[in-house]
Parts: sequence; C-alpha cells; structure tokens
Amino acid sequence: MRALSNDVFLRALRREATTRTPVWIMRQAGRYLPEYRATRAQAGSFVQLMKNPELACEVTLQPLRRFPLDAAILFSDILTIPDAMGLGLYFEEGEGPRFERCVRTPDDVAALEVPDIKAELGYVFEAVARIREQLGSSLPLIGFSGSPWTLMTYMVEGRSSRDFKHAKAMLYATPEAAQQLLNKLVAAISQYLLAQIDAGADALMLFDSWGGALAANQYLEFSLKPMQRILSAIKAAHPTIPVIVFSKGAHAQLDAMSHSGADALGLDWTISLAQARRICGGRVALQGNVDPTVLLADPAQVRTEVRLALESYGHGHGHIFNLGHGITPDVRPENLATLITSVHELSPEFHRN
Amino acid sequence: MRALSNDVFLRALRREATTRTPVWIMRQAGRYLPEYRATRAQAGSFVQLMKNPELACEVTLQPLRRFPLDAAILFSDILTIPDAMGLGLYFEEGEGPRFERCVRTPDDVAALEVPDIKAELGYVFEAVARIREQLGSSLPLIGFSGSPWTLMTYMVEGRSSRDFKHAKAMLYATPEAAQQLLNKLVAAISQYLLAQIDAGADALMLFDSWGGALAANQYLEFSLKPMQRILSAIKAAHPTIPVIVFSKGAHAQLDAMSHSGADALGLDWTISLAQARRICGGRVALQGNVDPTVLLADPAQVRTEVRLALESYGHGHGHIFNLGHGITPDVRPENLATLITSVHELSPEFHRN
Repeated sequence: MRALSNDVFLRALRREATTRTPVWIMRQAGRYLPEYRATRAQAGSFVQLMKNPELACEVTLQPLRRFPLDAAILFSDILTIPDAMGLGLYFEEGEGPRFERCVRTPDDVAALEVPDIKAELGYVFEAVARIREQLGSSLPLIGFSGSPWTLMTYMVEGRSSRDFKHAKAMLYATPEAAQQLLNKLVAAISQYLLAQIDAGADALMLFDSWGGALAANQYLEFSLKPMQRILSAIKAAHPTIPVIVFSKGAHAQLDAMSHSGADALGLDWTISLAQARRICGGRVALQGNVDPTVLLADPAQVRTEVRLALESYGHGHGHIFNLGHGITPDVRPENLATLITSVHELSPEFHRN
Repeated sequence: MRALSNDVFLRALRREATTRTPVWIMRQAGRYLPEYRATRAQAGSFVQLMKNPELACEVTLQPLRRFPLDAAILFSDILTIPDAMGLGLYFEEGEGPRFERCVRTPDDVAALEVPDIKAELGYVFEAVARIREQLGSSLPLIGFSGSPWTLMTYMVEGRSSRDFKHAKAMLYATPEAAQQLLNKLVAAISQYLLAQIDAGADALMLFDSWGGALAANQYLEFSLKPMQRILSAIKAAHPTIPVIVFSKGAHAQLDAMSHSGADALGLDWTISLAQARRICGGRVALQGNVDPTVLLADPAQVRTEVRLALESYGHGHGHIFNLGHGITPDVRPENLATLITSVHELSPEFHRN
C-alpha cells in the first residue's frame, strides 16, 4: 500500500478508526468551477477534454487547490468502454451522451467485441499516471467505471433514457443475449479497473447509476451479480484496494449489496444514513448522502444539513461524507467550501471514544 | 356502502378474504388502446378530452369492455387542481405537461388562492357521476388526485422535471413558503377528493409520483405529513372509503407509510412484494407491482412474471394486482389480456385456506 500523508478516506473505507469523517464530492471536478469551464473551453468539447490526459489531470486537480478534500477522483466519463467497443460516443449540447450505433438485437450483441482495453483506453491510464504523479504522497486517487448494467442501458438505448425500455425489454425478452452483453462488459470493466490500479489508483468506484430502475429480482441477476464478478477479479489481484459500489436508488437491495464483497456502498439522499447503517450491519462503509440541492440554499442551511447527515450516521467510523449524487453546475463554490469546512469542524465529535 | 356485483377490489383493500387477487392497471384507459386514440382524436387534445365529461366517461369505460378488470378509474389528470388555481395547464406534444405561470417565490405562494373546487372542477365531478351511472352496480370506481408534494413540483418547476431543483430548493431555502403552498394544496385536494366521493367514487388513490425524489426526512415532513392531513379529512367524513397512497420510489419510507392511515400502498417494481409485505407487517394492503416493460415481452414471459409477483406476495389476502407504474403506449392489448387472464387463473391458489 502507498504511504499517504492523508489516508483518512482509505481508512474510513476499511472501517478503521479515524479522528474525523473524510469528505470528497461526486463530480468535484465540474462545471460549477470557473477554472473547469475555462479548461473545457480550451479543450473544445467534453470528449476532447476527457481524452486529453494533460487536461484531464488538470481538471482532476483543480478542486483540490480550492478545498481540503480527502480524495481525488479521476476526471473521465463512464462511457469510455462502449466508446472503445466502437459505438461512437458523442455529446449533444444540453442532451447528454449519445452513441452513433446502438446494440438492440442478439446479433448486435454477438458482433460486439471486447476491445484491448489497455490499447484502446491508453488516454485514461495516462491521465491516472499523471494525476498520481502530481498528487505525490498527498492524497488517494479514486478510479472508476460504470457498472455493466448501467453501460448496457446506454449501449442499448443509444442515449440516456428515462424508462430504459429497450434495455429492460432485452432482459425480459432475450435474457441470454442480455447476459452475453453483460459478460462482455464484465470482462472489459475488470481489465479497465485493473489497469487503473496499475496506473496508480488507490481505490475504485462502480457507478451503477441505473441499478435502481430494475425490478428487485432483475437487479440481483443483471446488475449486482455482474458487479460481484468484477469485485472478485479485482480482489483476486489486489485484495487491499477498496471498492465502492453505488447503485443509485436501489435501496430495497441494500442488504444484498452489503453481502456483495464491496468495501463500501454509495447512498443517495432518499434513505437515511441511520436506516442504511442498520440494514448493512457494519459489513460495509457507507458513502453519502446529502441532496445536492442543499447546496442551492444558504450557508447556514448547508451547515445544518451536514450536521443532520453526521447525526444520522451517528457515532463511529466507516462513514465517507459525500453528496448523494454529483454536484450541479449552478452551485456557488463558496457553498461547497461551507459544506467541507462543516464536515471538518462537526465530525470529530462523532469519532471520539 | 354501495352494493356491487364485483367487490373483490374493495374487499382486498380492506384486507378481507377473497377467492382470487383483484386486478386493475394504472393508465388502463390510455394510448395503447386504438379506441382511446380515436376518442382523443375526436376530442382534439388531451386537455379537451379530460375536460369533456362525456368523452372522459367513454375512455374510462373502454378498457372494461375489453378486459375483466376489477375496478374502473376516473380518466383525468393529476394537474387539474393547479390548473384550477390559475396556472394555465397545457401539453407540449412529446414534452409532457407545462404551466403558463409557475410558483417560484414566497410572494407567488402568498398570491395563490385555494379555488372553489366544486365550481372550478365541475367537469371532473360530472365525469365521475356519469361513470358511476354507467357502471351501475357492476364495479367500483377509483377517484384520485396528485399528492400535495407532487403537485407542488409541477407548480414550482412549471413542467415535469428530472431533478426538481426549484421545488426542492424551496423546501431547503424557504421552508415556510413551501409549507404554505402545501397547506393550500391540502385544502384543495381534500375538497377535490370529498367531492369525487359525493359524485360516486368508491375508493381513492393519491399519486405521489415524485415522493421518491426527496431526502428521507424531507419526505416525511413535506410529502407524507400533508398526505396524512388529507387522509384524516377523508376518513373523518367517509370512514369506509379506502384510500391508496402511492409514493413511487420511496421504499425506504414504507414503514412510515404503513402507519400513515392509508388503507393500501402502491408499489413500483423496484422492491419485491415479499419484502414490502414484511416491512408493512399486515397494517395495509399492497398494490402492484410488475414492471410495465414486462408487457413488451411475449405472452409466456408475461405469465411467468404474473406468477413471480403472486409468489412474492405469497399466500393470503390484501394484494391488489397492478403494474408498478402506468401501462405504456407501445403495449399490444393482447399482452395485457394475457396478464389479466393469468391473474385470474393463477391467483386462486394463493387464497385457499
């Protein structure tokens, strides 16, 4: 394990004792920061920014220069793998991600090849290595991937969706084809995350953004099981690298998730940390879960919500403070500073013996 | 209580013994039916259809002519009340509902008046009376309203939303104004539902479509509590009229919901009926919860999913079969027939002593 001057995040992931609650923010390198918007303008587009290791490194580091965060997270996108599979990722302004080709039929699935991830996604690993070098021994770096099911939704729909109709219909109508697609994604994602560790990632996160759209039994079969196979592949090679699983909105499945082999679970704001902690019974650390909308209120309200979240988790270790989803572009950076300062000031009392 | 030749739905809502599981379908009067599309074309627009009692009655009855459903549900829209409050409801083709004016500031809230619901929404009560007359003593009729929080989201955003940013920001930044708005909605919705009972509704449903977007503590304060005040108003006047509460996606709050005074809870597909039944401990009936996407698969798969849902609820009474959300326009009516027939054929074994 890498020796880091600030390892409070990694220790909290392992549910070891810490003197305060660590904090990082999903999408901390993002549009709410003027310096991010300037670098993105320099790159030309989101995709060009993400594929430029030097600029991806720069935007990863920007929030760390402003705020006393406890982790860096690779600046990238969850759709790098489908793009490397030849689907042609692009972004329609104001519309989110799109693919030039989508995967709708069993024949489409059969034709899809697992790419040589190391070769195709070199720009990601180069960014990880640059960030790792810039961070030195200061802070841990989080690598990440979209989950197999979440990547499948974009690949089948060809874009973001509200109901995931085509992707879910594939699960019900041609489950073998769906499994074949998920198998290919498990292979690609496992390679991808292992290569991020090789390049310098200290912890990993699986973003299962759309796990919460599935029926309970379908979630277990088509979202959680594929993630568990990735967890096994990572743990076999790197038993000490912690992995966070974030199935947004899938709270009815928290008990199963807490037995999945994940070290920590991400939570959105729709379940209290107290309830989630009871359900998970100390088997995992918990990350979250303030509603990003809180950052649109005034600083006093932000501080109140930080206190409420800390009280909800309660006394003891194993909590990583975060929002319940990514920070939104309309947040004033001063409000995020208030949130982070509040965690630093208010959390030590929850860690005293 | 009205004597009905088919009261299996009402008995299940009261958790009384039945010989099979009743079934109705959210949005059963809808675009998947060619006869609905014809009547809508005749009306000119969705709003014109909804505001025409004769045609609203006609589309309410259409699915009952095709399928052996156990309840009729008033054809209307959840946004009639904000429209009656003067916000100017219209529909943008393919975009969903919009309001000409929205409610963003404490001054906007203060200026809003609770309308004379009986006078303003006469077209709804006239439709209820016509449907009641047409149904005779055959089937129960469900009346409904959007919940206060759900109506608030549309009134504050001015349209449907993915993140409810302005509505949630009002809860955090100006909670007194939010409460004032919710109070006005509680008053209007209570009047509205009581008048539907007077016109002939046998059961009621509160559609809290966006309760699941709220943080746990915010849900209890700003969604469930206002619904409980409506439940109290209805129960005080009509103790035997059952009320179903459907807070889509708010599964972490099922225990609180089961103590709210609702007779039944609607469930979407992301929690198993088995788990929901355990959490609710027999305090309420449960309605749901097959993923509407299942109806895009083949008939054998539809029947399998019906069996899985019945098995998940398990032996005993108090289950109302339904989808977990409205039926979608692309479903073939034959597949819905398969679902309903399967409930009739497969459910009796779960009701034997």
